[in-house]
Amino acid sequence: MKQHKTIERLIIYRLLLENEIQAGVRHIFSHQIAEKTGNTAAQVRRDLMKVGVAGHAKMGYDVAELISGIQTITESKNGISFVVIGAGNLGKAILNYFSKLFPHFVAVACFDIDPDKINHMISGVYCYPLEKFSKVVDKKHIHLGIIAVPPQGAQEAANLMIQGNIKGIVNFSSTPIKVPKNVFIENMDIRITLEKVAYFASTNL
Amino acid sequence: MKQHKTIERLIIYRLLLENEIQAGVRHIFSHQIAEKTGNTAAQVRRDLMKVGVAGHAKMGYDVAELISGIQTITESKNGISFVVIGAGNLGKAILNYFSKLFPHFVAVACFDIDPDKINHMISGVYCYPLEKFSKVVDKKHIHLGIIAVPPQGAQEAANLMIQGNIKGIVNFSSTPIKVPKNVFIENMDIRITLEKVAYFASTNL
Repeated sequence: MKQHKTIERLIIYRLLLENEIQAGVRHIFSHQIAEKTGNTAAQVRRDLMKVGVAGHAKMGYDVAELISGIQTITESKNGISFVVIGAGNLGKAILNYFSKLFPHFVAVACFDIDPDKINHMISGVYCYPLEKFSKVVDKKHIHLGIIAVPPQGAQEAANLMIQGNIKGIVNFSSTPIKVPKNVFIENMDIRITLEKVAYFASTNL
Repeated sequence: MKQHKTIERLIIYRLLLENEIQAGVRHIFSHQIAEKTGNTAAQVRRDLMKVGVAGHAKMGYDVAELISGIQTITESKNGISFVVIGAGNLGKAILNYFSKLFPHFVAVACFDIDPDKINHMISGVYCYPLEKFSKVVDKKHIHLGIIAVPPQGAQEAANLMIQGNIKGIVNFSSTPIKVPKNVFIENMDIRITLEKVAYFASTNL
């Protein structure tokens, strides 16, 4: 299942279902999932059919079964290991955020050019010099990288990741970067988002 | 100019141009902007025409003039003031990130339910109890809010913002929330993004 949008929806369903099960919900109907995630019930049923879990006409879907079914598709069994280039404020925030909120994500190393950070623990993760990038990710079998550097260093960080055989990149720098087609990239530009929302907030008054 | 996509592209151009001018670039052609932002040159020229700045056939656009032209459309003169609900790891990371990297964004208050945080400074910003939300944002004329609470508190935080006349919301919680049509919302789900990229990274091996 390679479709970008389907995978994204399945992940969103799973996060919803994890919240529901914590709240004591045991069964759920497709229209309820649809309503809470902004999809149509037909879309939800089509997506869940791909997961191979069938709903019961009167009870709906078994929430635990559904979570487990989606997990087999979207989640690796041993957690998701990743590295971060950039151990400044943003990099530290990302490392803290994931280690505390989502133990399923495991940061295994960070990289920086600052001598004060190199060879020290940054937010619980060892910081290596940039030059060691390929060696470290190869040894630790990492294929997921986060870019948390200022804009002017973003493409260089991406190039290091590509050379290091990283296959998925989340780019938090406020600048677009180029990657080859076999590398999957998502841009998380907090600044662009905030400026855009601020613009529409001011025109909505 | 209310078009969502145009505004987003203009903000992206401006961030690029701000980097270029720092690097000493004084003039730029539409095809250069296009290449660096992943648009077509024709699209860039159409967008910049709306800004009212004309390019020179031989020199291209004056970068400083272009930044200023885009700013008059996308940027408020006195900085962008916002509040944050949730002063945990994520909220603190957001407050730190913006105050250090983008002084143009001004966090004026944060809100939490934790007695250890209320009435203290959190990352340089005063933390109020949730009950004071409407009063504080009304007094400070804030219309932009960031939600940085766990999923189960997200809709309640959104409801407070809607009651408090917030018109633009950035939702960092890992759950969808509902807002009326006159409120602009963007979801920044770091977790969904990371899970999606991790999935595609693992299938790209």
